[in-house]
Amino acid sequence: MRPPTPGKRTGRPRSTDADRAILDAARAALVELGWSGLSMGDVAARAGVAKTTVYRRWANKSDLVVDAVTALLDDQLELPDLGSLRADIEGVVQHFAALLGHPEAKTGLMAIIAEATRDDALRSRIRHAIVDRQKRLVIEGRTRAQHRGELPPDNGAHPGPQVDLIFDTIAGAVVHRTLVSGEPIDAAWAHRFTELLLDGLLAFPGTAGPGMPSPPSVRGADPSSNAGRA
Amino acid sequence: MRPPTPGKRTGRPRSTDADRAILDAARAALVELGWSGLSMGDVAARAGVAKTTVYRRWANKSDLVVDAVTALLDDQLELPDLGSLRADIEGVVQHFAALLGHPEAKTGLMAIIAEATRDDALRSRIRHAIVDRQKRLVIEGRTRAQHRGELPPDNGAHPGPQVDLIFDTIAGAVVHRTLVSGEPIDAAWAHRFTELLLDGLLAFPGTAGPGMPSPPSVRGADPSSNAGRA
Repeated sequence: MRPPTPGKRTGRPRSTDADRAILDAARAALVELGWSGLSMGDVAARAGVAKTTVYRRWANKSDLVVDAVTALLDDQLELPDLGSLRADIEGVVQHFAALLGHPEAKTGLMAIIAEATRDDALRSRIRHAIVDRQKRLVIEGRTRAQHRGELPPDNGAHPGPQVDLIFDTIAGAVVHRTLVSGEPIDAAWAHRFTELLLDGLLAFPGTAGPGMPSPPSVRGADPSSNAGRA
Repeated sequence: MRPPTPGKRTGRPRSTDADRAILDAARAALVELGWSGLSMGDVAARAGVAKTTVYRRWANKSDLVVDAVTALLDDQLELPDLGSLRADIEGVVQHFAALLGHPEAKTGLMAIIAEATRDDALRSRIRHAIVDRQKRLVIEGRTRAQHRGELPPDNGAHPGPQVDLIFDTIAGAVVHRTLVSGEPIDAAWAHRFTELLLDGLLAFPGTAGPGMPSPPSVRGADPSSNAGRA
């Protein structure tokens, strides 16, 4: 696994390595012991550092695990340009689903979300450290699609509400499908979900009978087919 | 709160009341003590029954909490006919979000989902007891929309994959918005989400500039505008 923020390491003290070892240890301990079994002392022992080193950086278990999950998401989630909005969404859906297949990712993420239902400070921390941060993926994909002419420009409208909506819809569907319904996400599911997200249920081919024409104005992966609307 | 399955109570022994008291106690104890603090003995004491009564019915904490959450969802989630697919979706989104505002619902649901990332048997139980069961809402709303002519008939195609997709998308977005992003769901959000779900991102008005026409073939809350495609 690559270091979360390689560009920032230059000139930083060696404690960065200790931090990373602690975060790695926290995720591994969580998978093995569960939230209730996890202790700061155990994490310190696994990371090969003094317990005071852990406490100097993180006041409690919640803060530590949020940062451990944040580091994993920062490190692993990216949005390579696959040439179209459709391909970019299908790509990130499969990528996020694959990440949630790893015990460290799914157990860490769901543990803090579950704890946050009883802890407002933790919920706020999750929002700032994880939600606000990972929205970068939606913003990036959306901006790219606007440059391609696949989505209309903002024209002065604040993009925040739409970014929030898209983020919750994509992340929520992937988390729910894999961790609640307990079903895998393959290329076919990613394709159908992206189809729904782009074209909507009323234009969705899943239920369309043989005589159901697709509305040409909103169909097709070819960005040029939407260029007239941008 | 109404009994979860009133129709089935006739002729059943009084233990049904004990069962319900135990499930109520399990949810209350979970909110107060958290997953790790919850014990079968504590639940029995709160419910005013012997510990053996609890163990006679539920082998362990996971099984008990899954049933406690199932009873709450069965009891509270419904899909009144609001006259259109659009209104039905907006209604169930707000209704589910309101339910997740209650500590017993959100803490119970997220606790078992988090534990299930480390427990395959629990994940399977959640799927059968909660996911497969609550899909009734999607099936009902979809059938109703087909009868109204808002959605095309199945024409022999198996509706399962689309039902699964819609279920994960709606439930996932509501859970993510409220419990991960930590933002409220109001009528405006429900409206925008439903707009996205029905019409898709490419027809979504959120980013459209003043000069951006909506494609008439997929717009409008009036079901009759889609009748020609059904």
